[in-house]
Amino acid sequence: MAEGLGNGGGIEAGGGTGGRDTPAPYTTCTARSREIDTPSSQVVHFPASAPLRLDCAQELGPFSVAYNTYGTLNAAKSNAVLICHALTGDQHVANVHPVTGKPGWWETLVGPGRPVDTNRFFVICPNILGGCMGSTGPASINPATGKPYGLDFPVITIRDMVNAQVRLIDHLGIDQLFSVVGGSMGGMQVLEWAARHKERVFTAVPIATAAWHSAQNIAFHEVGRQAVMADPDWEHGRYFDHGKVPSRGLAVARMAAHITYLSEEALQRKFGRNLQSRSGRTFSFDADFQVESYLRYQGSTFVDRFDANSYLYITRAMDYFDLAAEHGDVLANAFKGTKTRFCVVSFTSDWLYPTRESREIVQALNAVAANVSFVEIESDKGHDAFLLDEPEFYDTVRGFIDAAAQKRGLAPAGAAQ
Amino acid sequence: MAEGLGNGGGIEAGGGTGGRDTPAPYTTCTARSREIDTPSSQVVHFPASAPLRLDCAQELGPFSVAYNTYGTLNAAKSNAVLICHALTGDQHVANVHPVTGKPGWWETLVGPGRPVDTNRFFVICPNILGGCMGSTGPASINPATGKPYGLDFPVITIRDMVNAQVRLIDHLGIDQLFSVVGGSMGGMQVLEWAARHKERVFTAVPIATAAWHSAQNIAFHEVGRQAVMADPDWEHGRYFDHGKVPSRGLAVARMAAHITYLSEEALQRKFGRNLQSRSGRTFSFDADFQVESYLRYQGSTFVDRFDANSYLYITRAMDYFDLAAEHGDVLANAFKGTKTRFCVVSFTSDWLYPTRESREIVQALNAVAANVSFVEIESDKGHDAFLLDEPEFYDTVRGFIDAAAQKRGLAPAGAAQ
Repeated sequence: MAEGLGNGGGIEAGGGTGGRDTPAPYTTCTARSREIDTPSSQVVHFPASAPLRLDCAQELGPFSVAYNTYGTLNAAKSNAVLICHALTGDQHVANVHPVTGKPGWWETLVGPGRPVDTNRFFVICPNILGGCMGSTGPASINPATGKPYGLDFPVITIRDMVNAQVRLIDHLGIDQLFSVVGGSMGGMQVLEWAARHKERVFTAVPIATAAWHSAQNIAFHEVGRQAVMADPDWEHGRYFDHGKVPSRGLAVARMAAHITYLSEEALQRKFGRNLQSRSGRTFSFDADFQVESYLRYQGSTFVDRFDANSYLYITRAMDYFDLAAEHGDVLANAFKGTKTRFCVVSFTSDWLYPTRESREIVQALNAVAANVSFVEIESDKGHDAFLLDEPEFYDTVRGFIDAAAQKRGLAPAGAAQ
Repeated sequence: MAEGLGNGGGIEAGGGTGGRDTPAPYTTCTARSREIDTPSSQVVHFPASAPLRLDCAQELGPFSVAYNTYGTLNAAKSNAVLICHALTGDQHVANVHPVTGKPGWWETLVGPGRPVDTNRFFVICPNILGGCMGSTGPASINPATGKPYGLDFPVITIRDMVNAQVRLIDHLGIDQLFSVVGGSMGGMQVLEWAARHKERVFTAVPIATAAWHSAQNIAFHEVGRQAVMADPDWEHGRYFDHGKVPSRGLAVARMAAHITYLSEEALQRKFGRNLQSRSGRTFSFDADFQVESYLRYQGSTFVDRFDANSYLYITRAMDYFDLAAEHGDVLANAFKGTKTRFCVVSFTSDWLYPTRESREIVQALNAVAANVSFVEIESDKGHDAFLLDEPEFYDTVRGFIDAAAQKRGLAPAGAAQ
């Protein structure tokens, strides 16, 4: 969900394959519209003759997958790492964001010398199907009408997203990914990859995620969707026809979701009952408390960088995700015969995807005698911990990646490729 | 917050002071409008010459307090119990609700033979100041303009609500309440009564509550307020001038809040990932999951019985509540010299007002050597547990009340008064 964007520092030029020479000024609305169909990252277009067969039984074609890459693919094509992004993330994992001008959303994990070391690995980060940063989604032009899809876009699933990624990886000529790594919804994609494309995944790192969405998580998503759809400017999903954006509804959706990304402790530590003004309560409905002001800011900045319909589609895909149901209601079946090495990570204060849901994944992997390590990281930062400064988390991923790379016969970190 | 209303059974006639002979049909909109200024309960009007001095330094007058009573006040006026309602509750604690036709919201606790036995006690339940069921609030007519107050209503606090109740208790000629009982925001009122009116409270029963609102709780309330204010039909608080109701915004606010009233376990147990239809996912934005349908229902029925501006004002009052801050930042100071007997109750799965917040109250009471018993009830029902069928909870309250009644020299249960 790229919450990390909210923590970004200064605007710095450059960054891998971003393809922009002049990063400022960022006029977000125009910049965002441009990214939908002409992304400033790389993009591969799959023709109508090679459509994507979706879970809903429709075919989607033509379709595009926008992506960034970092580092160099080795001759054996054995050093590729796929990074899967979360709900509101995108392909700009380790470069300056072309719309917000903020640093990549996972530069703590991905980059030169980082645990996923771009001096060593060829890192691929695609925008998901259904997104709004260049991969085909509800904001993209529907070739049948010449207008954005809106609600004519088919309802997609996590498996559909992964199938689009498979096409990208095929296109890049890579047989086996050294690793598939992702947190939150990105972790769902990791699990789907590992379950459906076992031979193509050497290691899998599902972080702060679950094999199915809980009733509470569905409930929070439904609140968000209702907030968007309650906004008259949503115009039944065709706001672009009316030159409108359902900003108010989408901001409320983001505010509600944002609370779930943080822990109660983190909110208390960061804001407590601190007031905005030293002069005390205003006895009004202004943002008296710092936490109110913070949430309003999260809501309003999100609207500048995200498409409201994409938000509906992606939350729906997450709610539909149920890896056990896809495998006869037995999660272990999803992993039968796997040779993939797993590193499952959870965070103690994550109440959106609590540790017990990671344990269910681990138990299923144990049931099929898979190679799995599981680490629960002590953190009071909630679900967002996976995007924030958590040294133990990065040490864990680094250790796992390094050991697996040795097994795979990849040159150690720092050695010439 | 009268979530219990959602659990109500059949529509039954009668019920104490409801004052309605023909409970059906309930045309909610008209019925609700009528209740604002002409409640079907008892009501006391305080004249402009005796205004209420508010925390915001304004004076409110004239003002009204609507209330229900059950049972009979004894000659010594020593058997009065004040019930304080929560966010969206009202005075109809133990009678059929005049708008929804559902049973009273706390009939599990209050009634003949119940822990708060109306055969034995004189029970008073006022609608709070700022409410919309007959006590003065933003939907009431502003005598200065002849139109509803809307946002001209002053921002009130929990202390203001309690001060209005004090005026009611004075009006009824009662010096000391045998008990003040309330859950959630009702518990805040209990604490305020106990802190500010020590000599008038023989026992106090704060349930599932806290001495101050946490950052997370403020955040959830802010989401709700923003949802209401984002609805164009809110019309900057003057929707009544335009013949509108901000139904969509208020429904979203209620949906978000409702999730916080339940535990993750309760949602999972009750709904899990159950679909509405046996035929599977619809690949649409319909309410596929039962939990979605349930939430939508909670949102839409709430709109029929509650005023949107009242929702803003009451959530604000809760956010402002900080009993420690009112007493030099030392909570124990609030209770110095108290002779009141306290029974503090929390529920294990309540994440809105978790047990540790009840413990803070208990510790403050212990610090001033107050008479306090504390019970944490094992329940997986979340915050709403206090309104639901929890035998251990009711046994606890009954035991406490009975023992205190004996101390107070009241006739035992079942004896002639």
